[in-house]
Amino acid sequence: MEKIEALQSRFDTFLHECDFSGKPSELYAPIDYTVRQKGKRLRPMLCLLGCDLFGGSIDNALWPALALEVFHNFTLIHDDIMDQAPLRRGMETVYKKWSPNVAILSGDAMLAMAFQFATRTPNAVGAVNLLGKVAREVCEGQQFDLNFETQSHVTIEAYLEMIRLKTAVLLATSLEMGALVANAGPIDTMALYKFGIAIGMAFQLQDDLLDCYGDVQVFGKVTGGDIAENKKTYLFLKALELASDEDKKQLEQMFSGSVEMELADKIAEVKRIYERLHIQEAVESRMEDYYHEAEACLDAIDVAEERKVAIRHYVARLSGRVR
Amino acid sequence: MEKIEALQSRFDTFLHECDFSGKPSELYAPIDYTVRQKGKRLRPMLCLLGCDLFGGSIDNALWPALALEVFHNFTLIHDDIMDQAPLRRGMETVYKKWSPNVAILSGDAMLAMAFQFATRTPNAVGAVNLLGKVAREVCEGQQFDLNFETQSHVTIEAYLEMIRLKTAVLLATSLEMGALVANAGPIDTMALYKFGIAIGMAFQLQDDLLDCYGDVQVFGKVTGGDIAENKKTYLFLKALELASDEDKKQLEQMFSGSVEMELADKIAEVKRIYERLHIQEAVESRMEDYYHEAEACLDAIDVAEERKVAIRHYVARLSGRVR
Repeated sequence: MEKIEALQSRFDTFLHECDFSGKPSELYAPIDYTVRQKGKRLRPMLCLLGCDLFGGSIDNALWPALALEVFHNFTLIHDDIMDQAPLRRGMETVYKKWSPNVAILSGDAMLAMAFQFATRTPNAVGAVNLLGKVAREVCEGQQFDLNFETQSHVTIEAYLEMIRLKTAVLLATSLEMGALVANAGPIDTMALYKFGIAIGMAFQLQDDLLDCYGDVQVFGKVTGGDIAENKKTYLFLKALELASDEDKKQLEQMFSGSVEMELADKIAEVKRIYERLHIQEAVESRMEDYYHEAEACLDAIDVAEERKVAIRHYVARLSGRVR
Repeated sequence: MEKIEALQSRFDTFLHECDFSGKPSELYAPIDYTVRQKGKRLRPMLCLLGCDLFGGSIDNALWPALALEVFHNFTLIHDDIMDQAPLRRGMETVYKKWSPNVAILSGDAMLAMAFQFATRTPNAVGAVNLLGKVAREVCEGQQFDLNFETQSHVTIEAYLEMIRLKTAVLLATSLEMGALVANAGPIDTMALYKFGIAIGMAFQLQDDLLDCYGDVQVFGKVTGGDIAENKKTYLFLKALELASDEDKKQLEQMFSGSVEMELADKIAEVKRIYERLHIQEAVESRMEDYYHEAEACLDAIDVAEERKVAIRHYVARLSGRVR
């Protein structure tokens, strides 16, 4: 897809030319370090694609797209402190490489920066309000996620609401930001937002699956990490729902951390139960539902079919259904 | 001053009627807890006074004033994590009462909120840009402050630049925000901003003095805290500048943490050196310089003298020169 490559290279060039240096260097070096790391630039791309969908000016979408990328990177820096994660994208996390205090402050500065960048577009007030709303939602999602660590019972509904807030709303808002820049109407904008929520939910379920079943070569990390950390993912919660009393008891024990067990044995045992309950198929079916919902939303948008090709193709590529 | 009381009660009522609740409660309860604490509301008051100075609409200044207050409270929550401060305004700090993670996230949500509030005024883009700029400066100031803890040599110049960024720019920006709301001209706005910087510097030097010499009854905390924590305040740096080689050596040793000494003895000894060097007088003289500079800035503003009475009186009251 030529259009996708063109937008990608447009944003990459724009980002490359941005200057994130400043004083004191302890504050700005971690920002530059984080923003310069290789990445798909998913959120900026969704913003540009959303803008292009309605024939908007890509020039006007570049700063809001950068705002979304910088905002996303801010969330990673603060999440890594909270999760005490030593590595991110194969690189040392900011709190490890510098210190928790530096990570708090650099993250704060990035959040402020994101709002500054959001004003650099004709519809600045709208852009700032979108960013403000999504920022609060992402904080809410992260807090729900932290709460789940110590909650003994989490419903599937609560889990889906958590990933909606923590992951999907930012993808949806990225698309909405593009629609805003292009002055799209409210009904089309809402449809695009819902499209974004649906693909965001599907992507997160995909991540949950990959964490368990992914190809180590492709995925870049050891599988079973969520099981090792007793994370209450969709896979685990779905398994609890479908399990016999005996399997349920065993799952809960293994995820309580109270059972002495070799990690590899635990992962293998959990996977055996998942297999017995056809969890992979259940997750894939749920993902398909989301993809269908997304398609319906995209279909409903009142623009010529040919304008939708790029966004459709981009999402298909990300979902692994097209290369 | 009737006008001051009127503006104060206007903002207090406005704040009282604001709703800071939300879900999950772990995210929003600390926000409510912090914002509801008693305080002078210095930054909102400066915003309203700045607006009133140019005859602007106070209604249009209330949300930006709230944005500044919420922003300020966000900085306190994150600073308290970094400084590991157990108490603030006589209450448990958020990170102590809840947890560091909750304090990080609630603070993040407050920063996002502040930007949302800043858009609720006719000149929304201007308000967001002022907030974005000052937010980065405050982060820079806090990072310089953290750097000083481990730096053996800090110049007086570097210290003054640190307190300018950490404290003074927010007071100056609060006044500027009011001027923006009132559509003041750029020359008057710049003069008011400089007035704010000057009073901000004076207030911080006053705080440094009070920490050392303040009346425990009035000040609400034990004096000598900065000496106990080896903080490189203006008092300490000025003393180093004026001290004989012997006094200098002794001061540096006592502030290096390498000398075994009873805390009360250390505080008394440092104070004796300060007295010998007339440090209190030196600080007061510097403060006077700032107050004179502030007065000159206010004089230069092109509005009728009677409009300046409230702001002049408010600052005089805060500086302790009028009750």
